[in-house]
Amino acid sequence: MSHPLRIGLAGLGNVGAGVVRVLDANADLITRRAGRPISITAVSARDRQRERGLDLSRFIWVDDATELAGRDDVDIVVELIGGADGPALTLARRTLAAGKALITANKAMLAHHGLDLAAAAEAQGLALKYEAAVAGGIPVIKGLSEGMAANRIARVYGLLNGTCNYILTRMENERLDFGHVLAEAQAAGYAEADPSFDIDGIDTAHKLSVLAALAFGARIDFAAVATQGIRAVELADIDQAAALGFRIKLVGLAEASEGQLFQRVHPALVALDHPLAAAGGALNAVVAEGDFVGRLLFQGRGAGEGPTASAVVADIIDIARGSIGHAFGMPVAALTALPPADIARRRGRYYLRLTVADRPGVLAELTAALRDHGVSIESLIQRGLSADGDAMIVMVTHIAGEPQVLASLAQMAASDAVTGAPVMMHILDF
Amino acid sequence: MSHPLRIGLAGLGNVGAGVVRVLDANADLITRRAGRPISITAVSARDRQRERGLDLSRFIWVDDATELAGRDDVDIVVELIGGADGPALTLARRTLAAGKALITANKAMLAHHGLDLAAAAEAQGLALKYEAAVAGGIPVIKGLSEGMAANRIARVYGLLNGTCNYILTRMENERLDFGHVLAEAQAAGYAEADPSFDIDGIDTAHKLSVLAALAFGARIDFAAVATQGIRAVELADIDQAAALGFRIKLVGLAEASEGQLFQRVHPALVALDHPLAAAGGALNAVVAEGDFVGRLLFQGRGAGEGPTASAVVADIIDIARGSIGHAFGMPVAALTALPPADIARRRGRYYLRLTVADRPGVLAELTAALRDHGVSIESLIQRGLSADGDAMIVMVTHIAGEPQVLASLAQMAASDAVTGAPVMMHILDF
Repeated sequence: MSHPLRIGLAGLGNVGAGVVRVLDANADLITRRAGRPISITAVSARDRQRERGLDLSRFIWVDDATELAGRDDVDIVVELIGGADGPALTLARRTLAAGKALITANKAMLAHHGLDLAAAAEAQGLALKYEAAVAGGIPVIKGLSEGMAANRIARVYGLLNGTCNYILTRMENERLDFGHVLAEAQAAGYAEADPSFDIDGIDTAHKLSVLAALAFGARIDFAAVATQGIRAVELADIDQAAALGFRIKLVGLAEASEGQLFQRVHPALVALDHPLAAAGGALNAVVAEGDFVGRLLFQGRGAGEGPTASAVVADIIDIARGSIGHAFGMPVAALTALPPADIARRRGRYYLRLTVADRPGVLAELTAALRDHGVSIESLIQRGLSADGDAMIVMVTHIAGEPQVLASLAQMAASDAVTGAPVMMHILDF
Repeated sequence: MSHPLRIGLAGLGNVGAGVVRVLDANADLITRRAGRPISITAVSARDRQRERGLDLSRFIWVDDATELAGRDDVDIVVELIGGADGPALTLARRTLAAGKALITANKAMLAHHGLDLAAAAEAQGLALKYEAAVAGGIPVIKGLSEGMAANRIARVYGLLNGTCNYILTRMENERLDFGHVLAEAQAAGYAEADPSFDIDGIDTAHKLSVLAALAFGARIDFAAVATQGIRAVELADIDQAAALGFRIKLVGLAEASEGQLFQRVHPALVALDHPLAAAGGALNAVVAEGDFVGRLLFQGRGAGEGPTASAVVADIIDIARGSIGHAFGMPVAALTALPPADIARRRGRYYLRLTVADRPGVLAELTAALRDHGVSIESLIQRGLSADGDAMIVMVTHIAGEPQVLASLAQMAASDAVTGAPVMMHILDF
C-alpha cells in the first residue's frame, strides 16, 4: 500500500462537511479503489464552532485557509470556499504555486479565472480538477473530457441549476406563482437569501462557460454568455406551453459552429418527450452531442451535500490513482479563442404570448407585425381572460430569424391594443 | 509532442471500421486531447477484400490477428474480433503477456475471462479497458469506476441491449407481434441471423455481470445471472402494462446487499415516468444508485458503428494520456467473491396475466390460489377475449415474496379453467 494522500480542506459548509462524511463512511472502499488511504490532515473554515455533526478535533485547524497551500502535511488542497475572487482565488493560486494539485467546486472562480489557473497547473504538471463545479454529483466533466474525447462536440446543453428546476417544477405541479415558490424555497433553505445567482441564471452561465470550454476545446468566455433567468416566467406561460406539448426549463445552451461560440442561458420550451422534460425537481441533466457517439444524456442530483461531496471525492480518488490530465481536456495553449456567435444569425421556433384588449382588428394588427418581418405562424391560440375584455394570444412561429421575431415583438408592443409586456421564449428543437 | 501511440487493430467489422473513421475524421482534435498522435499501424480481419469504404493500404495487413500482440510496431492492441474464446482470447492473452495494453469491446470474453485478463494486466502494470463492451457509446464504465468511485453502490440496472429495446418499442408503437418485428429487424440487419444472444438476454447478462463487478467491487459471476429474454413478451402484456401505467423493458438488474449478489435479466414493468421508460428504440440507459450521489442516469446509443467506435477511441485516448487503472476499479485480489443471492428472499410487486375459461367460480379459484400463499392483490382487471368464452385476467400483486407468487401461479396453472400458460413479470419499483 502506498503512503496516504493528505488533504487540506478549505470550507466546511454542507459540501465540505459532506466530503468528511464520505471519506469517513466509505474509507475502506475508497482505499481499495484509490490504491492508497486518503486522509484529511488540515481544515479551515470561517466558523470553527458551528455545529456540523462532525468530530473536527482529529484535524489540524487553520484559521487562514490560504495557509493550507504551504503546509508540509498537505499533498493536495480542496477549495470549497466559493466566490470568484477573494480567499478562494488566493488559495487556488498559492496551492498551484506550491506545487500541489487543486480540487475545487467553485464554478464562479473557474468561469472568471479558469484559464489562468489551468495554465498555472499545467506549468507545473499538476492536476486541477472540478467535477463538483458543474452538475453536482453527475460525472459530466469526466464524461465530456474523457468519455467523449473521440468526438467533435457540436452542442452541449442542459439543466444546470437545481433551484431553478425545483421552482419551475413546483410552479407547474402545484400551480403556484414564481414569487410564492421562491419565498417557500428560501424559508426551507433550498434557495439562498439572495437568490439572484440562481434565479437570474448567473450560476448556470458560470457552469455553461466551463462546459463549453471543455466540449469545444475553446477558451472560456463567460462574459459572452447571454443570460436570462426565470423571474419573468409566469404560470400562464407554463400552462400555455403545456397545452402546446412543452415544458419550460431554464436551459444553458452552448454550440460551436462556423468558428463561433454560441452561449446562452434562458427559459426555453422543451417538448414533453425530450429527456430534459423528464428531469424534474432539483435534478440536473446535461445533453452533449458528439459527431460519432450521437446524443448522450447525463442525469442526476446537481446539488446538495451528498452528490457534490461525491464528485469532490471522485476527483481526490482520480488524483490518488495518478491522474493529472489537463483541466480543459487539452493544454491551455491548444484551446481556441472562438468569437461569440452573432445573435442575428440565430434561427429557431419561438413561443410568443401577448395580453391584448379584446377588440376588432387586434389580431390583424399582431399578425401584420409578424408578416412585416417575414415571420410566419405555426399555431395561434386566443383566449378570453377577463370580464373587462382582455384576451391572451399565444403563438408559435415557424422557424424564423431571432432578430425578425424581436422586431415583430417590438412592433406589437408599441400597439395600443397590447396591454402587457409581450413574452417570448425559445423552443428547443433538438 | 510525444511519439505516436501505435495501434494494432484486430477486427474490421462495423466497429473496427468505425475506429479507423473516427481516428481519420478527428485526428487533429484527438491529438490535441491525447497529447500525442494516435496511429493505426497494423490491422487484421477475416476478410481482406470486403468493401469497407476505407483505404487499408496504409496499414500493415496481418493474416493471423494473434500476431499483432508480438509486433514491435504496435504499442497497444484493440480487440474487436468477438467471441468469448478462440482468437479473441488468444490475442488478449498474448497482448498482455507481451507487455502491451489491451482494449476490447468483447463483453462475452470479459464475462467469462475478465478476471483472468485483469489479473494478467495487473501483474504487468498494464491497462485493460473496455468502455465499448457495455452500453456502446455511453461512458458508463468510466462513470461507475471513476465518476462514482466515492460511493458504495447498492444497485445498478438498465437497458443494455439495443436490439431488444428496439423490438419492444416497435411492438408497442406499431402494435406488432414479437415475431413480426424480429423478422423485419433481421431483414434490415438490425438483428443477427441468430438473434439468440440478444433476444434471450445473454448479451445483457454478459454486460450486467461486468457492470456488477465494477459497481460492487465483486468478482464477476456470469454463471449466476438469472436470465430470461423477450421471446415470451406478447402484445397483450404490453397493452395491459400500458393500461396500468407501465412499459415493458428488458432490464438487467444487479444488487449487492447483505453480502450477496443478485443478478437478473428479465422483462420488467417500469413506470411510465421512470427514466428507463423514456429510453425508446435502440437507446441504452443505465441507472446506478450510490450512497452519496443518489441515482445517476446515463443514456445514449448503445450500439452501432459510431457510438461503439467512440468508446473504443476514448479508451485509446485514456491510455495515450497515461491512464492505466485497474480493469474492475481495484486490484483483482481486492474484489470480493459475493455468493449469489437467494431468490427465495426476493420480494416485490408482480404483474400476472392469465387466460381462463369465462365460467362461474374461476375468479374465486384464482384468488384462492393467491390467498393460499399469502399473496394479496393490488389491482385486478378481467376482460372478455372472444366469443367462445375465454377471458383475460390481469393482476398486480402487493409486495410479496417471489416464491409465494410462483407457488400461486403453479396452483393456478394446474386448474382446468386456466387455458394458457400464465405470464408473470416483475415490476421495477425503484
